[in-house]
Order: sequence, then C-alpha cells, then structure tokens
Amino acid sequence: MKKIDLNCDMGESFGVYTLGLDSEVIKHVTSANIACGFHAGDPGVMHETVKLAKENGVGVGAHPGYPDLMGFGRRNMACTPEEVRDYIIYQVGAMKAFCTALGVPLQHVKPHGSLYNTSVGNEVLIRTIAGAIASVDRSLIYLTLGGAQAPLVKRIAKEAGIRVAYEAFPDRAYTPDGRLASRQQPGAVIEDPKIATERALRMAKEGRIIATDGSVLEMKIDTLCVHGDNPSAVEHVREIRATLEAAGIEVVPMNTFI
Amino acid sequence: MKKIDLNCDMGESFGVYTLGLDSEVIKHVTSANIACGFHAGDPGVMHETVKLAKENGVGVGAHPGYPDLMGFGRRNMACTPEEVRDYIIYQVGAMKAFCTALGVPLQHVKPHGSLYNTSVGNEVLIRTIAGAIASVDRSLIYLTLGGAQAPLVKRIAKEAGIRVAYEAFPDRAYTPDGRLASRQQPGAVIEDPKIATERALRMAKEGRIIATDGSVLEMKIDTLCVHGDNPSAVEHVREIRATLEAAGIEVVPMNTFI
Amino acid sequence: MKKIDLNCDMGESFGVYTLGLDSEVIKHVTSANIACGFHAGDPGVMHETVKLAKENGVGVGAHPGYPDLMGFGRRNMACTPEEVRDYIIYQVGAMKAFCTALGVPLQHVKPHGSLYNTSVGNEVLIRTIAGAIASVDRSLIYLTLGGAQAPLVKRIAKEAGIRVAYEAFPDRAYTPDGRLASRQQPGAVIEDPKIATERALRMAKEGRIIATDGSVLEMKIDTLCVHGDNPSAVEHVREIRATLEAAGIEVVPMNTFI
Amino acid sequence: MKKIDLNCDMGESFGVYTLGLDSEVIKHVTSANIACGFHAGDPGVMHETVKLAKENGVGVGAHPGYPDLMGFGRRNMACTPEEVRDYIIYQVGAMKAFCTALGVPLQHVKPHGSLYNTSVGNEVLIRTIAGAIASVDRSLIYLTLGGAQAPLVKRIAKEAGIRVAYEAFPDRAYTPDGRLASRQQPGAVIEDPKIATERALRMAKEGRIIATDGSVLEMKIDTLCVHGDNPSAVEHVREIRATLEAAGIEVVPMNTFI
Repeated sequence: MKKIDLNCDMGESFGVYTLGLDSEVIKHVTSANIACGFHAGDPGVMHETVKLAKENGVGVGAHPGYPDLMGFGRRNMACTPEEVRDYIIYQVGAMKAFCTALGVPLQHVKPHGSLYNTSVGNEVLIRTIAGAIASVDRSLIYLTLGGAQAPLVKRIAKEAGIRVAYEAFPDRAYTPDGRLASRQQPGAVIEDPKIATERALRMAKEGRIIATDGSVLEMKIDTLCVHGDNPSAVEHVREIRATLEAAGIEVVPMNTFI
Repeated sequence: MKKIDLNCDMGESFGVYTLGLDSEVIKHVTSANIACGFHAGDPGVMHETVKLAKENGVGVGAHPGYPDLMGFGRRNMACTPEEVRDYIIYQVGAMKAFCTALGVPLQHVKPHGSLYNTSVGNEVLIRTIAGAIASVDRSLIYLTLGGAQAPLVKRIAKEAGIRVAYEAFPDRAYTPDGRLASRQQPGAVIEDPKIATERALRMAKEGRIIATDGSVLEMKIDTLCVHGDNPSAVEHVREIRATLEAAGIEVVPMNTFI
Repeated sequence: MKKIDLNCDMGESFGVYTLGLDSEVIKHVTSANIACGFHAGDPGVMHETVKLAKENGVGVGAHPGYPDLMGFGRRNMACTPEEVRDYIIYQVGAMKAFCTALGVPLQHVKPHGSLYNTSVGNEVLIRTIAGAIASVDRSLIYLTLGGAQAPLVKRIAKEAGIRVAYEAFPDRAYTPDGRLASRQQPGAVIEDPKIATERALRMAKEGRIIATDGSVLEMKIDTLCVHGDNPSAVEHVREIRATLEAAGIEVVPMNTFI
Repeated sequence: MKKIDLNCDMGESFGVYTLGLDSEVIKHVTSANIACGFHAGDPGVMHETVKLAKENGVGVGAHPGYPDLMGFGRRNMACTPEEVRDYIIYQVGAMKAFCTALGVPLQHVKPHGSLYNTSVGNEVLIRTIAGAIASVDRSLIYLTLGGAQAPLVKRIAKEAGIRVAYEAFPDRAYTPDGRLASRQQPGAVIEDPKIATERALRMAKEGRIIATDGSVLEMKIDTLCVHGDNPSAVEHVREIRATLEAAGIEVVPMNTFI
C-alpha cells in the first residue's frame, strides 16, 4: 500500500501574536514543522505546539530558520556554514527538549524560509545542514525538496548517517528540470484548489508532477507540503487528505515508512 | 578525601562582543556555567565554549536566564512559572544539543542572574526550575545556593528525581541566618583575595562560613562560585585552587561526587 | 462646546504578524498610540501607521514600552530611571522621525503596558517620563491616567514644561479613591458595551465616573481610551463616538484643546 | 587653509558589553559615527556617547545598520528598499532625539557595515538612503565612500536636497578605478601605520591616493575613516592627526566646511 506524509508549518505564533490555524489543520496532517524561536515561535508556543502534535498523533519536526524575527526568516542572510551549523544545532536542541519533556520523539528537521531556499542544490549548505542534524541525533529525518537535488542530498545524507524525506508542493509549478518555478513567474503558485488536489494525488500515487511545459517529471516523493494559514487553506488540506485516502493511499507520519 | 567543585560563569560573549577570560580561567575550574543565548551567549559562542570545556575536562552546565540581552538577565522580569519553565527547557535543550554534537555530557543547570536570585527560597520557582530540568534530563544536577534554602530545595529536587549541588561564594558576606548579604550593604562583597581564599578553604574543608556577626554557619557545600572576568580574578581562582589542593582537598567536577 | 479625544493603541503589528484592526478603528478615534518597536511594532509598521493616522486626521502618539517583544511589554521589568529615560527618548525619537518624514506633527506620548501601570502614582517614574518627553520636544503632550495621580502628574509636568492629557477608561471599574480597580477583582472590566457607552458619555460630558461603591468621582478627563482589537470592539468605538456626538460633544484630537 | 574631518565608529557597546576605546579616541577625531541599536549600541550607550561627543566638540553622526546584533550588521541581508528606508528613518530619529535631549545637533548619517558596503555604487540603495535621510532632516550630511561612486551619489543627494561628505580609508588599498580593494585580496588592509599615515596626509592635502598598480587617483575627500578599537589604533589616530596638523591642515568637524 502506497504511503504519503502531509507536512505543514506550525508553531509560528510569537508572544501575543497568533499565526496560522494550528489546532484546525493539525487534524488533517501527519507531520508538523514547528518554528524554533529564531524566525518565529517562542518557548511557550513551542511547548503548546509539541503538545498539540502529540495529542493528534502528528510527527514533530524542528523548523529552524535564520535569526530574523522581523523578516520571518524569509530574507537571505549571508551566514557562514559554521553559523548555519550552530543555528541548527541550537534550534533542533531546543525543540528536542520540548519533545523529551512531553514524551514524544522528535521526528524530523526541515529548514525554514530563506535557509531552505538557499540550501536547495547548494552542496556546502546541504552538507552543513545534514552534519548539524546528524551531530544532534542520527535518528532525525532531514526533510527537503525532492527532484533535481535529490541525488546530491541522498549522497550527503548517507555520508552523515541520516535519512532524508523528499517533499513536493501540490500548489507550486515545477520547471521541466525538476525545480520549483520562481515565484516571480506568473503561474508559479497554483491558486485553483482542485488542480492542486489533482497534483497532490499524482504526486502521492505515481511520484509524478506535470511540469510547466507539460512534460512529466518522475521523482521520489515522501511528503507533501500543505498550509494552514486560513480556513480555506485548512479546508483544502482536508480535501487533499480525503482524496488521497479515497485513492487507497495511507496518509501517515514519515517516520513510519522512511 | 574531601572533594569540591569550582564553578564559573562562561560563554557570556555575544557576536563580536567578548566577555570574560574563558580560555584562561577554564584551566583552574572544574565546572562551567555556559550562557544559552537569552541573557548572553549565542550559538557560535556556545559551541566554542562547550568545546573549550571538553578540552579542559571541565563539566558543562547550562546557565539559562531571562530573555533580556540588553540587561544581561540581571533585571527582574515578572515572568509566570510557565514562562520560566519553558525558557529553561528551551535553553537547556539548546545547550544539551551542543554537548551531544561534541560528545560530552551536560552535567548541570544553574539559573543565571535575576532568575537565580529570585528563585532563592521561592518554593514556586524552585519547583518550576527543578521540574523543567527533570523534564529534559533527570541526570542533570540542579546547581543553586546552599544554606537557608537547602532543605526546601532538597525536598523539591528529590520529588522531581534530580540531584542538587549547593554552592557558596567565597567573596560574598553571609547573614547569620545563612543568606547572602544584600549587595546594598557595605562589605557584602569581599574585596581582599586573601580573605576570600581563606573563606574558600573553610567552605571546602569544613563546610563552614563565618557570618557578618562572627557566628559560624554550617552548611553542605559542593561547589564554590568563582569568577574569570579579568586577569586578577583568574589569578585569584588559581590561588584558591592551589590553596585547596595544598590542603588535601580534591578539586573535581561535581558530577564525580554528587 | 465640550470637547473630548478618543485614543486607541495601534501599530502593534510586527513583521508578518498582524494585531488589531487599525484601518477600521482609525475612522472612529482622534488619537493613535503607536508602538515604537520595543514591545511591538517595527519600522515598517510605524511608517504605515503614521501614514494611516495622517490620512484620517488622527493625532499621532508615541507608545513606548519595555524592551520585551516576547511579553508585549506587559511584564514588569526592574529598569532603572535612567534606563526608562533612555528607552523613552529612543522610542519617541524614532516615532517623531516617521512623523517628520510624513509631514505630520507628533502629538503625544503615552507609556505602554507595564511601563504605564508601574508609573501610575510613582513620582520617580512620572518625573523620569515627563523629563524624557520634555527633553525631546516640549510641544508633546504626556498622556496618562487621570484621577488620583492627577495633582502629582500636573505638578511634575508643569516643572518639565509640558502639557498633560488625562485619560479615563469607559470599560474599567474605578475604586472610590479614583484608581482603576485591579484586574484581579471581579467586575474590573466592564463587559457590557451599553454600560461602557453610558460611562463614556458621563466621563466626557460631566467628568464623572461612578465608582465600585456607587459614589461619584469627579476628575478632569481629556481623552477616553478605546480598543480596536476585533470587529465588536471597533463597533463599540463607533457607538461611543456616535453617542458622544449626539450629546453635543465635539470629538477631536487632544492637541486642539489641551 | 585645507580642511579635513576625521570620522570614527563609536557607541558600539551594548548592555554589559564594551567595544572600542571611545573615551580615548574621541580626543583625536572630529566626527563620531554612533551605532543606533540595530547592529550595536543601545539607548543608554547612545545617550552616553552623544554626551561624550558633545563634551569633546565632536560632530555627532547616526550610524544605522541592519537589524542583526548577532552579526554586528556585517552580514548582508536581503532587505527591500522600503525596509532599508524605514530602518534608517527609525535609527536616525532615535539618534536625533538624544542629540536634542543633550542640546547638540545631529551632523551626519553614515550607513554601517554591510549596509554601507552594499550601497556603494548601488543607485537604488543610494537613492533610498539619501531619501530617508532627507525625509528626516535636510540639514544632515550623507557620509559615504568617495571615488568611483561620487558622481552618482552627488547627483542623487542633490536631488534629495542634502549634502554629501566623501570619505577615504588611509588603511585600505584602492584599485586603479577608485574602489576599495576587496578584503579577500592580500594587501587590502594596510598594516603599517607609517604608510597609512603617509596615505592619510596625501589624501587630506592633495586629494590623492596611490592605487594598487602605483597609479595616482584623484578624488574629493572630506573625511578620513579611522579606528579606535585598541590602544595602538588610538595612538595611530593621534599620529595621523598630528601629522595632518603639522602639515598645516585644519582638522575639524565636516559640518564646518561641507
């Protein structure tokens, strides 16, 4: 039976500020990427979000980012590999402590925002990230983009002794060479939820994505990235999951099959 | 053979800012209280300081504080017990990750600055701190002030399932009831290094402190708090250690005898 | 013709985080207390909010707070008077620069959250705040709580050479001695908008407040503090203003009559 | 009589952290670039440093940087022009308020670190910076690098209605096209203080710099950037000033001749 994971960014609230419908979308996903206090999140939010994930049987992930709360970690910062390494060790360790305190394992690590984007296809950064994860806990899964960079990531992660989960984005267009189309391009984000749901199904069932030129990309896809920003986004996640399950796909945390 | 630990605050540098002569004083102490990024320290400094402690065979401690870099964690903040709990879990977890990455155990947790001072004799805060430490790792030692509050701390730590190390300050005056004399009082800080060294010896050898009224306090003392702020402070630590060892006292990390 | 100002906290968003319905509530108030980046707000939000105030003919106020974004400035911090002075000069200066850039005067300064609460009736803090405001610009109005502390504030502000605006809270209960009832007390916050509107009218028209024991307090009231947190709060502000205007009271920025 | 200004970064301390020998180097320079709390500095440090400048008759400058205390503003951040504009308005406003409080004019604005470097020759950023400065106060001088970018800066500053001061670095090598040699290149920083002093004299007296290929660059130079990081740096500044004055050059704040 084909298995897929649904991952979603969570725990992005901070102090009095609330972001995302975590307690709604958590019902429909299987893995949570939880902010660690650098670009979003704070210790109280982390505690609550790990608890929420535990109560819903959702795999807990650390979602480390650049130290840029004002920019939500979305602005590129010229950090050295050593700085990135230490930022990841720090944030993963902080998240893992909440997992330990709540008696739930930390499942994965997914770099956030600009750190994620900058790392795609970047051997030095991939090696830095994989090494940092491995140095804290070799049972952790490194969650990153599937497709063009997969062979590179696979090799580096193997050397580091950790597993990788490859993700795909049902609501993002892909170039014929297996990369995400730039957000500057028209059509880069797929607005129609029906089309996105169809793409999610093809991704999960066949490991296939139709690229911008109509060609078919084949790639290993372990998890689909979904969003819980607003009520319609949450409803969309519910539909994606229902569609996947109706097609006989098991929607489960990545830890059960990676 | 009588044993004592010497603990010193370290890793208080931040970014381009350097504080303390860590690489000098580390040669003379046995335990390091390393800042965790809230009141001082940053991920790079934490990494370097844990490495330095490892290389010198010094026990690594987390030194969590209030989230107040501008005030160095020395200003009281009206945090709730839940906030304190989560700040400690977060900071201890981050520090523990660097220990794991460098293959050295995390030995202890010592609250910093105003968090330390506020907690002394405060049942709710002691319970909060002990609980937070225990929730991350029951092998950690809770380092706090000996004397008047010791029975309270002992009981709470026992309930939480963690060990306690009681510290004394060779350079601080004590009231007859076993408390630190307020820094507002004249003579609260003992400036003469010879007298401080004598007090350190009496603390380590006999578990005794001469109070401000000349009376003798008896208390369990596991570790002496020393400072590495400047060259004369470092020299003073060297002298204290030499004096203790000359008196047949074994100066070793607290983890070996608590 | 009787005049009153309606003031409301605004500009409390930060980065990607949105707080408050600023663009709605701005239509109904006459003065905006805009966060300055310490407890809330950031440079972009300040720019946008000053612009919004200008477009709506609303008086711009700086709303300085403690440097505690994680706690929204609501946690007491043991800052020295010198620290408070410099935090206020800094924040008022930053806000004034956006006013200058947008060609609108800075009208007033209202301390935020715990800084506001701690200052009430505290001679040292009132003197510190008044002095800081005066040192930046003597045309600024110091906005603070009316009632019991008014004579003290009046004297200090006069010495500092600045004007004061006294505010009252339509939705807060008052003790018979003219102080805000503690939020710990039941009934401290008046939930019924009709009663709050009636109280607002009595405050604006007669300078009177019915205290918790039914006695009538008389005090100078220049401005009423209202809220724009959610749609019903905004609707409540609209009703208060309509009620005031229907009673022949002119609702205008404090700068026009203080 | 030929005039030159000597500018130096100051006020870079933060909380308990001390950086730079401000009270020493201030005796030898004529303009201070004072950090504004984003990459360094805090309100208390700003207050003290403006006071120090005033007491020494030194021109006060705002030294705004990226919001990156951990990286001291030296790491490039992908900020939008609008973000840069608002960061500068905010920081210049905060600094100007301390000047007002202390009764001293704000003289100039010099972007710091990566913001400075990124702006050199970058029309969008120069326009953003000049516009932000002009929007706060048209009497402020925009301090930036002389040489290759001077015509571009001159034109934009003229449009914005502000003056420009062009600086040169006695201790930095220049390429034949009038740019600073990259720090990656060997010899980019001139270590020999005698040579740097000679270069300072040629810069101030003749407006000439010998480039890396031996060719002579001619450029308008209003101010020389010097450093006060350590005792030998301070001594070097003293020597430069003595040499300049011995050669009949008047060393005065830029505000007196720009």
